[in-house]
Amino acid sequence: MKKLGVVAFGGNALLRSDQKGTIGEQEKNAYDASKNLLILLKKNYNLVITHGNGPQVGNILLANIAGNKLYNLPEMPLDINVAYSQGFIGYILEQQLRNVLEANDMDRDIITIITQVLVNKDDPAFQNPTKPIGPFYTKDEADRIAKETKSIFAKDPRGRGWRKVVASPRPLVIGNKKSIAQLARDGQIVIAVGGGGIPAFYVEPNKLQGIDAVIDKDLASSLLAVQINADKFFILTDVPKVCLNYNTPQEKSLDRITVTEAKRYLEEGHFAEGSMAPKITAAINFVENSGKDAIITKTTLLGVDDGGTRIVIV
Amino acid sequence: MKKLGVVAFGGNALLRSDQKGTIGEQEKNAYDASKNLLILLKKNYNLVITHGNGPQVGNILLANIAGNKLYNLPEMPLDINVAYSQGFIGYILEQQLRNVLEANDMDRDIITIITQVLVNKDDPAFQNPTKPIGPFYTKDEADRIAKETKSIFAKDPRGRGWRKVVASPRPLVIGNKKSIAQLARDGQIVIAVGGGGIPAFYVEPNKLQGIDAVIDKDLASSLLAVQINADKFFILTDVPKVCLNYNTPQEKSLDRITVTEAKRYLEEGHFAEGSMAPKITAAINFVENSGKDAIITKTTLLGVDDGGTRIVIV
Repeated sequence: MKKLGVVAFGGNALLRSDQKGTIGEQEKNAYDASKNLLILLKKNYNLVITHGNGPQVGNILLANIAGNKLYNLPEMPLDINVAYSQGFIGYILEQQLRNVLEANDMDRDIITIITQVLVNKDDPAFQNPTKPIGPFYTKDEADRIAKETKSIFAKDPRGRGWRKVVASPRPLVIGNKKSIAQLARDGQIVIAVGGGGIPAFYVEPNKLQGIDAVIDKDLASSLLAVQINADKFFILTDVPKVCLNYNTPQEKSLDRITVTEAKRYLEEGHFAEGSMAPKITAAINFVENSGKDAIITKTTLLGVDDGGTRIVIV
Repeated sequence: MKKLGVVAFGGNALLRSDQKGTIGEQEKNAYDASKNLLILLKKNYNLVITHGNGPQVGNILLANIAGNKLYNLPEMPLDINVAYSQGFIGYILEQQLRNVLEANDMDRDIITIITQVLVNKDDPAFQNPTKPIGPFYTKDEADRIAKETKSIFAKDPRGRGWRKVVASPRPLVIGNKKSIAQLARDGQIVIAVGGGGIPAFYVEPNKLQGIDAVIDKDLASSLLAVQINADKFFILTDVPKVCLNYNTPQEKSLDRITVTEAKRYLEEGHFAEGSMAPKITAAINFVENSGKDAIITKTTLLGVDDGGTRIVIV
């Protein structure tokens, strides 16, 4: 009996902040990221892959704005931009993962599913945009673009500059969750819930509609992992382990923490909003609701014994 | 035992040439188009839905160009633009079809799959771009944009203006065809092969890569219908039936033609390139390879008895 794992790649795994984002770069990144799935596949996991889209959806947003200015193209709300990014990133990731599997004589099919995720239109997040997307700017650039595009920018907690922030409502139901589970349990690698899923809500009965927001991909991936009854949930980031007092002389990396400890550290403010905090929250959600373990680590440590921080129920 | 039908919507079914292309317009179009699937569902069909992307991918292309100019975003090749359009159109179509099904108390799930389609990198089409995409321009506008974006424009055969043309290689293998067939036969409505599929080829063994081209969606849909052993193939256009001597005093609409007749009419030049000709070719391909019937008609006649032109083996 194979185990079912959900692996959440960061958007940065496919487009690093020091890169321009050419297709060549993103293909290479996707290939390198995909190689790290081999250990889990050899350990007999069935897999669902989710991914962020922060840098990519930021570029899509800017292209829409530019197209509106230069060619009078219609403006696109964020749900559409997320749908674009699911098509784009899913395609690149599927293609490069196919190349990795073929080069390693592994016979698994891969399928990419466009995924809507239900949210509540009265979610308080709509009154308080916090989710950073797109490229980093200087204060002056951010002020100019904010004015030009009627959007809100906030200072990056890690000092990398200023970034556009949008509403990030809580995910409630993952669309196509039965099919995602079935396909994955049948042995296909399923790419789904890209960018946290396309946010949609019921305006009235029988009237589903998209909404201008971005769902946190770690929270949506966590909900998916619970709803498909996954055996393990891997959250990827750019550090090997979760740390207390990160980036201070008292920094201490964690091998294994309980949900109770994770909650306490979160309350104590050890984890940056929009960065490690949602990953810890996502891990807590999964572990509390499933009783199974979540792992937070960097991509190159995926599936490695004792790699990363393990979050456990007790 | 349910029958399996493939329905190919035109890109114009979701964005008409007299519309700007706002999301509101495209959602409404998708809802209206989806309503026409009800007859087939009530006639006990399992369905795979494919769709064009001409108007949409043209807008995506322009937005990319504008983003490059104004914000120095990286340029995106056409395979990426097609992937964007699959995410976008698949999402809108799935969402509105869900609304239609719920309003009609029909219990079918819907799943949208990002689809790559294999082409041959030595296909002669790469030397001779013929596939029109994007909005119509006056000759002067077309000349200016052609120069600005290093692209080629051609006059529309139906006199609607000038349009960008790109390479359109022949589709060879539909990615995920087994899953598409399985999901559809299990009763899900599958949206796939959007915009003719994302064109990809093997640069070398184990190295699949995208290519700057657009595959004709009717030819790709026809190949899909053959490869999943569909029972019927519906090609949608904006006229009720195929006509000989179209738009002349000798115009004659056709109820039923054999493959042999279809080929003769095609040779005699009754059907416009980039318009009815590829639909006839797609119908011929399906009927010759499957022995089953293809129907060419307008969206509102989908599934209606004696609606459209039936192409048959004998």
